[in-house]
Amino acid sequence: MQRFRIVLEYDGTPFVGWQRQTNGPSVQQALEEALQRITGERPVVTGAGRTDAGVHALGQVADCAIEKAISANKLREALNYHLKPAPIAVLEADLVADDFSARFSASARTYLYRIVNRRPPLTLDHNRAWLVAQPLDAEAMHAAAQRLVGQHDFTTFRSAHCQAKSPVKTLDRLDVSRHGDDVEVIAHARSFLHNQVRSIVGSLKHVGEGKWQPAEIGLVLKAKDRSRCGMLAPAHGLYLLKVSYDGAPAPKPEPGSQSGR
Amino acid sequence: MQRFRIVLEYDGTPFVGWQRQTNGPSVQQALEEALQRITGERPVVTGAGRTDAGVHALGQVADCAIEKAISANKLREALNYHLKPAPIAVLEADLVADDFSARFSASARTYLYRIVNRRPPLTLDHNRAWLVAQPLDAEAMHAAAQRLVGQHDFTTFRSAHCQAKSPVKTLDRLDVSRHGDDVEVIAHARSFLHNQVRSIVGSLKHVGEGKWQPAEIGLVLKAKDRSRCGMLAPAHGLYLLKVSYDGAPAPKPEPGSQSGR
Repeated sequence: MQRFRIVLEYDGTPFVGWQRQTNGPSVQQALEEALQRITGERPVVTGAGRTDAGVHALGQVADCAIEKAISANKLREALNYHLKPAPIAVLEADLVADDFSARFSASARTYLYRIVNRRPPLTLDHNRAWLVAQPLDAEAMHAAAQRLVGQHDFTTFRSAHCQAKSPVKTLDRLDVSRHGDDVEVIAHARSFLHNQVRSIVGSLKHVGEGKWQPAEIGLVLKAKDRSRCGMLAPAHGLYLLKVSYDGAPAPKPEPGSQSGR
Repeated sequence: MQRFRIVLEYDGTPFVGWQRQTNGPSVQQALEEALQRITGERPVVTGAGRTDAGVHALGQVADCAIEKAISANKLREALNYHLKPAPIAVLEADLVADDFSARFSASARTYLYRIVNRRPPLTLDHNRAWLVAQPLDAEAMHAAAQRLVGQHDFTTFRSAHCQAKSPVKTLDRLDVSRHGDDVEVIAHARSFLHNQVRSIVGSLKHVGEGKWQPAEIGLVLKAKDRSRCGMLAPAHGLYLLKVSYDGAPAPKPEPGSQSGR
């Protein structure tokens, strides 16, 4: 049995999300079916972040265990071949230790949320960003965001369907910056509650529009009340950017072949 | 009669190109039909650059003349409303002098060509960039590109269907740069021959792959022979970035309303 870590990029638009569901195609199912075609086995693929329908990934990480003798490079190439035409790409594949878990070994996740702040509709960025027509003050949004950094009870910014045992999370970084019409939010934490980033971005939008003073976000957080949260920002602006592993996930050296891309 | 300059962004994927054709939807037709719905007139829209099928625009410029009394802001909003769901956005609209021509008053055009240089297939950038799997040496491509800067007979890099009277053009700038997996080519000139940028990019790819030495591109240029050109780079990597007007196209001040976006 060989265990692999795979790094994935995908366009979340046509999927019901990462996780296998009965109501439509998922990223997990596409990967598991491709692996089955390659190996004849029925491997289970586990992802570090269970992205929702429409959410994209630039650096999702998943693991799988395979009986068949195959190099990491061959596996990556075969997956990219068998995944077509699904908009999923395997960027890297590495052989890892048997105890590696994409989900539980992860030390941090980084998400990007993209807002395009302009009146005209989106064309090339359709389904790639949230169009907000009202002018946003990104500096005020960034100031407000700093009130959420640190360890807090994030009940206000948590989906009703969240299955986490505790609403207490530690947000290491929450940065808002403007680049022309683009307003980008970067969120970094060990782990997130369900809908946490989208709930926070929807609330920061109120600050950016001047409906809320930056201090309001601290009051809303302290209220621990879901009804005080701003709107849920749409899924199609969210990107799972990166999953980090402490001390690196230590890809095993593979005899006779280079690891990764 | 009021003359307007409009600045456009579009996703070229679903169009047969800028220009009206009988075999499918064009950007020009979409704009003319939207204008007809707004004004009841049949205005002709002329573009600064006649982009081919699949070519995108981030800053195409067009002009049109309208009898109906309408402000530039209202026109922009009405166009964006009536263009839906076509992936065309009017970024700016300005009232201009009666002798303004988007095409003939233009002093320069700037194109961007996007290559993604990696083995894995494209997902979010599908139809937005050219995927080149073979590693490219962007510095060698940039060095080769400098041999094309200046006034030359570009017969080698010209489509058989090109209608320009002369193959002599002056390329002011041709820069190749790498940003991670992205290799970007920026081309700036008063005007271009048909397929000139895509022909040049296809030839620069040979240099990037090491098939041609940078000096080869100078010989190929001097040959004035279309058969010496590299492959034609695909349309979906090309973006009309900007159209420039000397001394600014002088938007007329419009009483009681702000110009543009």
